[in-house]
Amino acid sequence: MSRDRADLDALLDATVIGHVAFIDADGRPGIMPTAVARWGDRMILHGSTGSRWMRLVNEAPVAVSVATVDGVVVARSAFESSLIYCSAVVFGSLRRLAGDEAAEALDVLTERLIPGRLTEVRASTTKELAATLVLAMDLDDWSLRTSDEWAEDADTDLAGDAWSGQVRFGERTVSIVPAPDLRADITTPVSARKLRPRH
Amino acid sequence: MSRDRADLDALLDATVIGHVAFIDADGRPGIMPTAVARWGDRMILHGSTGSRWMRLVNEAPVAVSVATVDGVVVARSAFESSLIYCSAVVFGSLRRLAGDEAAEALDVLTERLIPGRLTEVRASTTKELAATLVLAMDLDDWSLRTSDEWAEDADTDLAGDAWSGQVRFGERTVSIVPAPDLRADITTPVSARKLRPRH
Repeated sequence: MSRDRADLDALLDATVIGHVAFIDADGRPGIMPTAVARWGDRMILHGSTGSRWMRLVNEAPVAVSVATVDGVVVARSAFESSLIYCSAVVFGSLRRLAGDEAAEALDVLTERLIPGRLTEVRASTTKELAATLVLAMDLDDWSLRTSDEWAEDADTDLAGDAWSGQVRFGERTVSIVPAPDLRADITTPVSARKLRPRH
Repeated sequence: MSRDRADLDALLDATVIGHVAFIDADGRPGIMPTAVARWGDRMILHGSTGSRWMRLVNEAPVAVSVATVDGVVVARSAFESSLIYCSAVVFGSLRRLAGDEAAEALDVLTERLIPGRLTEVRASTTKELAATLVLAMDLDDWSLRTSDEWAEDADTDLAGDAWSGQVRFGERTVSIVPAPDLRADITTPVSARKLRPRH
């Protein structure tokens, strides 16, 4: 468990997808995985104004979960083996953003998805903005767990012949594939060349 | 959207973490990220018998979300840019497994976390089994979405100078780190050498 806001920010900035839990129209648990981004002290997400679940969660209580896995702790027993992970749950209510604030939030989402891209493309049109629902929630109420340790094997297992260690996962490979309909004179922009995977 | 069960199985077999949405004791949305595994026609997960949330979700309705991101579609506009992803939500009720079935499910979870490890370590003890809660739910009611396409840019954007393509994410690097207290005569086992990251 961590109460350090910097840890939460680091996790949110390392992930793309948040899983938004809500209560559906029938009173049952609902959940939707969607792209989320941190914008200062808020988490933001977006979708179509026609999205049923997004209209359902607007101004309703939600819990949003994010997680990264960076390896496996291989213990001397199955029981003590575990994941190397970082996960957080943020509790609160999503609230629709409007006007300039919504437009600015969309720019933040684009910048998080493809850093640097905003300077390479035209601005969003009024029609595009009108078709998009942007929701935000405060980063006030949250819990965060990290696990990145060596196995705590029992003495009897330590005396045995089983191996113990960590298998750690690093960076993903990246490949750039131009669209089939791309004009031959258009070169790969900086944003695509610098894009690095998040979880 | 896919209704093909093989697509769901492929996604579940490619992921480690599921996000379990439930209704908490106060009637608000709750969510917990946890390791999940497919076992035939069921999804299974485990934790400590002392886990409050696991006791809360036993025999209660839940919705479990899994997702993988494998790249970004970089369109000629911010609006048309998107993620390359696969995600699913499984609806149902978790039910506690007991006896041999619980023990077998734990072996499945170990085998999914560290394939081949079961043959390298001792069997679980009665005490370990008693300390572990194993829950299962049927893979009956689910929805799955995939997106892996080229951008659909408007004609006016196609006529412009902006680049379009995909930035695709591949395999993660893997490094093996023996535990500091590992005896020098114990070599890295096959399971650790063959372990490959899942999402």
